[in-house]
Amino acid sequence: VKTVAIFGAGLIGGSFALALKRAGFTGEILGVSSNAALTEALRLRIIDAAASEEQAAAEADLIYLAQPVGRILAILERLNAHVKPSALITDAGSTKAAIVEKAERYITRCQFLGGHPLAGKETRGVGAAEAEMFAGRTYVLTPTRERDLETGAAREFVDWLRRIGSIPRVYDARRHDEVVAFTSHLPQLCSTALAATLAEVFASGRSEAEAASGLGLRDTTRLALSSFDIWADILATNSKAVLGALDEFIRRLSEIRGKLGSEPAELRPVFELAADFALAVRGDTGTETKKF
Amino acid sequence: VKTVAIFGAGLIGGSFALALKRAGFTGEILGVSSNAALTEALRLRIIDAAASEEQAAAEADLIYLAQPVGRILAILERLNAHVKPSALITDAGSTKAAIVEKAERYITRCQFLGGHPLAGKETRGVGAAEAEMFAGRTYVLTPTRERDLETGAAREFVDWLRRIGSIPRVYDARRHDEVVAFTSHLPQLCSTALAATLAEVFASGRSEAEAASGLGLRDTTRLALSSFDIWADILATNSKAVLGALDEFIRRLSEIRGKLGSEPAELRPVFELAADFALAVRGDTGTETKKF
Repeated sequence: VKTVAIFGAGLIGGSFALALKRAGFTGEILGVSSNAALTEALRLRIIDAAASEEQAAAEADLIYLAQPVGRILAILERLNAHVKPSALITDAGSTKAAIVEKAERYITRCQFLGGHPLAGKETRGVGAAEAEMFAGRTYVLTPTRERDLETGAAREFVDWLRRIGSIPRVYDARRHDEVVAFTSHLPQLCSTALAATLAEVFASGRSEAEAASGLGLRDTTRLALSSFDIWADILATNSKAVLGALDEFIRRLSEIRGKLGSEPAELRPVFELAADFALAVRGDTGTETKKF
Repeated sequence: VKTVAIFGAGLIGGSFALALKRAGFTGEILGVSSNAALTEALRLRIIDAAASEEQAAAEADLIYLAQPVGRILAILERLNAHVKPSALITDAGSTKAAIVEKAERYITRCQFLGGHPLAGKETRGVGAAEAEMFAGRTYVLTPTRERDLETGAAREFVDWLRRIGSIPRVYDARRHDEVVAFTSHLPQLCSTALAATLAEVFASGRSEAEAASGLGLRDTTRLALSSFDIWADILATNSKAVLGALDEFIRRLSEIRGKLGSEPAELRPVFELAADFALAVRGDTGTETKKF
């Protein structure tokens, strides 16, 4: 890989560029983005040059699509005519089935390999990019054929993923979407619903709620800070799985509501099941003791 | 205040003792607790001596009840006969109406002032106590009469609350319980329900969920680590308000579910309302940019 083109010079695209440089990449990094993002990315030396879509596609050995899912879907219809046959196109979209299907259909002149780094923060934009964004984080890859990971371009890309500190992990695209419906999209909607509920209840006296807020409320409402601009596409391309996750969650909440009203002691196994899972997700023995 | 008695040498009681010492308290701190907790608290020099319930009540100028709510309710029926008339009894229970009512009825020989420090962490026990636990945190006080805060004992206690860095704030006991039903008890049940939902869905392949977990899931499931031993009492003494909060939350989730299935663009105002509240709760302009 001599030339990388980052489509979408935002938080993830910018962080990927910074991470590559930190990991020793010495080739050229082109940016394709809005004028404002490109100006900022150049000023921060996150990209080396700005380029048009066609120019970047024509020059890049690695094309990294880091836009919202809807933008990725749109650009996949246009890229094929411009790419080098030896190039690899990959993406960082939060849902994978729609993107992989689109790429299967439109990208015929070079390889496509879907990806999803499980990383981010609630602040958007290239100004918030960090070279350490992917360190220690799972980087999902969704090859459609076994040989997808065995090409030279794919091997080199996966090697860079390891060098930036991420942990590559292979998922089927549809299974990925089903899993993140529960591990990412449901927590987002849960946090949004919680914050919206409180916003309504304390509409006329918000300071009362703010004064009575512990760090627990901060943690559970942090995802609610996320932008709908990104979530609209994620939810639109995974609505069936997300609706299923919401149904499961509402069912569980209704069960908790029922037990609380009649036999609160029966909530103990629910709390214990939940605590056991919350501990497992942390991948440790509970040594994390953040205040709330 | 020359002698303080801590009933319940656990996370909150131990932290209050440590905070007092750090803030310059030079009197004696007695501990009333289980043998195991007392041994640990003595070893860590968090308390100066162990005492029986009657002995501690008889000697203390400030009696600090830091047990689970059910234990506080029980001990309030026994303390009155033993206390000094000049003493102040206060508590750190997470719900206030039931405790204040009980104290009104049983504590006649000295003053009682209800309290609730909005502080804690998911680890229990005196070994996790910290002198800085209350720094910068709201400390709710629930006087029942105006003069409750004007007695010498109350003034001295509030002065210590300020010296340990907490921010005293007066609430009506019932209103406190209604507010924390939304700001604390609902987030707890939301986190528990979320973790229980995922535990069930991934029962046969938990590693798949763990691998796909971002920091967002960690944050939203952290409260789920809390012990039911504490929550059983909290929920039992605030069930009406919590049921109401659950109903509001389920209603909001169902609304989100409906819009997602029919007109996803209509979710934008919900996301914006939620983000606005989540930002306000942080009391800043969004400079917190924790990764997820």
